[in-house]
Amino acid sequence: MASWISVHDNSDFSLHNLPYGVFSVNRSRPRIGVAIGGYVLDLKVIAQDQILGDLEFNTQTLEEKDSNAYAALGKDVHTRVRKRLHQLLEAETTLGSVLRDHQDRRNRSLVLLSNVTMHLPVKIGDNTDFFVGLHHAENVCGPIDGSAEICPSFFDMPIAYHGRSSSVVISATPVHRPKGQFVEDGKPVSAPCRQLDFEVELALVVGQGSKMGSSIDVKEAEDHIFGVVLMNDWSARDIQLWESTVLGPFNGKNFCTTISPWIVPLEALEPFRTAPSKPDRELLAYLTQKEVESAYDIPIQVTTFEVNNEKYDAGKCNTNNVIFSLAQMLTHHTRGGCPLRPGDLIATGTLSGPTQSELGCLMEATRHGTESYEMQAMSSSKGKISRKYLENGDIIEFTAQARGKDGLGNVGFGKCSGKVLAAI
Amino acid sequence: MASWISVHDNSDFSLHNLPYGVFSVNRSRPRIGVAIGGYVLDLKVIAQDQILGDLEFNTQTLEEKDSNAYAALGKDVHTRVRKRLHQLLEAETTLGSVLRDHQDRRNRSLVLLSNVTMHLPVKIGDNTDFFVGLHHAENVCGPIDGSAEICPSFFDMPIAYHGRSSSVVISATPVHRPKGQFVEDGKPVSAPCRQLDFEVELALVVGQGSKMGSSIDVKEAEDHIFGVVLMNDWSARDIQLWESTVLGPFNGKNFCTTISPWIVPLEALEPFRTAPSKPDRELLAYLTQKEVESAYDIPIQVTTFEVNNEKYDAGKCNTNNVIFSLAQMLTHHTRGGCPLRPGDLIATGTLSGPTQSELGCLMEATRHGTESYEMQAMSSSKGKISRKYLENGDIIEFTAQARGKDGLGNVGFGKCSGKVLAAI
Repeated sequence: MASWISVHDNSDFSLHNLPYGVFSVNRSRPRIGVAIGGYVLDLKVIAQDQILGDLEFNTQTLEEKDSNAYAALGKDVHTRVRKRLHQLLEAETTLGSVLRDHQDRRNRSLVLLSNVTMHLPVKIGDNTDFFVGLHHAENVCGPIDGSAEICPSFFDMPIAYHGRSSSVVISATPVHRPKGQFVEDGKPVSAPCRQLDFEVELALVVGQGSKMGSSIDVKEAEDHIFGVVLMNDWSARDIQLWESTVLGPFNGKNFCTTISPWIVPLEALEPFRTAPSKPDRELLAYLTQKEVESAYDIPIQVTTFEVNNEKYDAGKCNTNNVIFSLAQMLTHHTRGGCPLRPGDLIATGTLSGPTQSELGCLMEATRHGTESYEMQAMSSSKGKISRKYLENGDIIEFTAQARGKDGLGNVGFGKCSGKVLAAI
Repeated sequence: MASWISVHDNSDFSLHNLPYGVFSVNRSRPRIGVAIGGYVLDLKVIAQDQILGDLEFNTQTLEEKDSNAYAALGKDVHTRVRKRLHQLLEAETTLGSVLRDHQDRRNRSLVLLSNVTMHLPVKIGDNTDFFVGLHHAENVCGPIDGSAEICPSFFDMPIAYHGRSSSVVISATPVHRPKGQFVEDGKPVSAPCRQLDFEVELALVVGQGSKMGSSIDVKEAEDHIFGVVLMNDWSARDIQLWESTVLGPFNGKNFCTTISPWIVPLEALEPFRTAPSKPDRELLAYLTQKEVESAYDIPIQVTTFEVNNEKYDAGKCNTNNVIFSLAQMLTHHTRGGCPLRPGDLIATGTLSGPTQSELGCLMEATRHGTESYEMQAMSSSKGKISRKYLENGDIIEFTAQARGKDGLGNVGFGKCSGKVLAAI
């Protein structure tokens, strides 16, 4: 599946991917595009030039400055548009005169990725964080000695808490170390967080929403997913520990959450389906999913940059380290009638794997900060650094790429990165 | 402080109150108004007629269909507008020709409350629920025998969790009993909630927001409050109990939250300031407030209607049953740099008082459903009903009225009510 636009072997953005993002050039009004190789295809131009006009949807949704209205149209429309974009962009296109050979339109619609500024791809109404990572739960629940059990409902349903939507930012936005209240020498103090951490997550973006009072059937849940992004759920462990004894995390999480700029459609992830990390067991009917391969095999690489610009390997996770699927999360979320809105963000929780090199946060890698975590330089010549928690100046970056299968090309997300700045 | 508009002795809406709401008449586009006696003063008409044009703010914010843009203007603007509205509406007005004696404008701008439909007064970005009620915490933390302590950080800072914004509805919207997962006979089941409850709360609506990375000083926090509303934080206790062991409440709360239609400005509540329910103790500097009277003495009446339309007394709470003020809640919320946006909702948690007749939820009144709670008919002739938890058909209604002091007139909120419907 090749395109007439050249796509590098290592590119995240094969013709098979076509993720949606919102970009601007030289401070222009943000607009919706899809990534292909080293370019963004500007969907506002494509819509205004009537190239999608026969697909029976409101093409003005592609002229908005966020993708909420387009996301709301639902899966059928997205599938039709995706098919048309494939037809336009494939090497053997029969629509060559529409784009490939139409120099003026090519100039107007294909923008170099290196020239764009990316923005939040959707206005986020609500932001939910699940806790479906098996190894993460085993590592963080209870005291360090592992004597405590994971919470009782963990295997019966995907559990979750509501996060903050006002502090979700796009990749490359710096994050200030939060101040907060925590216990030191047996007394509460208010100070800059001493245990700043990252968390590697996958998050779905809701497409078509659901009405208040109604529940989404697990069989139809994937149809409500516009796509997925990488997420760094920055966490202040000392603040979180002191505050979340009865009501869950609050200031320990709400200072910042970073997402990658490109919303990858589930259709692009189809070739990478795999079974979840835990064998099936009997679930209540509303959560029972026939598909055995309800998870995705997408390796995620975490790196730390130090100020000297060297990258260090901070861990390798995978989106398959989950015991519930995205569909089960959505279904459970709406079980009591909670309405979903297009653009809502719903994340998996930390995606740690079973070994020491596959942990999705420092709290796990350092056993709650009691040990140092050694990270090897990616270039191998610069040796190692070690961390207990994040230091000011550290840049944490997640990348994820499912490598092309069946000649379909890679599917990646772009970077999910952020630099830690001192507390204000 | 009297108005030339007649205000009944029992009215919530004295000239001293002037709360903001969003209303429509005959399905018109919603618009912003203030309540006075039995009327709404249509602020779109007032703004378009240039009556506020000299007050140095963007009067187009009053022509919107929600009050977010107006709320964002900040306290100084709201104070100037409030003063002008007082001048227009007071009995001894010197601006009689502008409204009182201007029959055409009176006809266009004063709408009978009985003719309007109320809407959510703001678009809610994020919805936060604190837990600052002393008696509520004492009653619900730990097992029924009271042996467990309130969580360790309870007295050191206002603790909170993030709620859901998509399911916040305006008073009079019915609520479907949620389905959900809970434990019965030792096994997880999925069924309509058996322990549906209400929670009596006060919630502030954010006016001017705050930037990501910055904190709001406690001395300036009240300036960020547009006003306050009553809130019913409907709760499914069985669902909540099973899910919230490590991450706090989720489906047990996110199916519905009801607010009263009128946003009461803090200035209207000034005469009702009182000390919080707990004597001062030493707090960390960022939470230390000089004002001793940082709470408000506002009695809240809870009633249940049965289907026969008789009202029963379900409890009397007070907004002074808190150990932290609204200012302290806001300050703590932004301590780590979490940005607030105009229209965000931030609630106190349940406002139970110290005695059996002052409990703000059935879980407290029935000791976790182990006892029946008897409620006396308000008309006294119809006897009693009893409940463990809410039944389908029950209408729960909160009203709150601070009775006029110093000749200033009553300050009330209108009703915060909702009828329980069967699960879908």
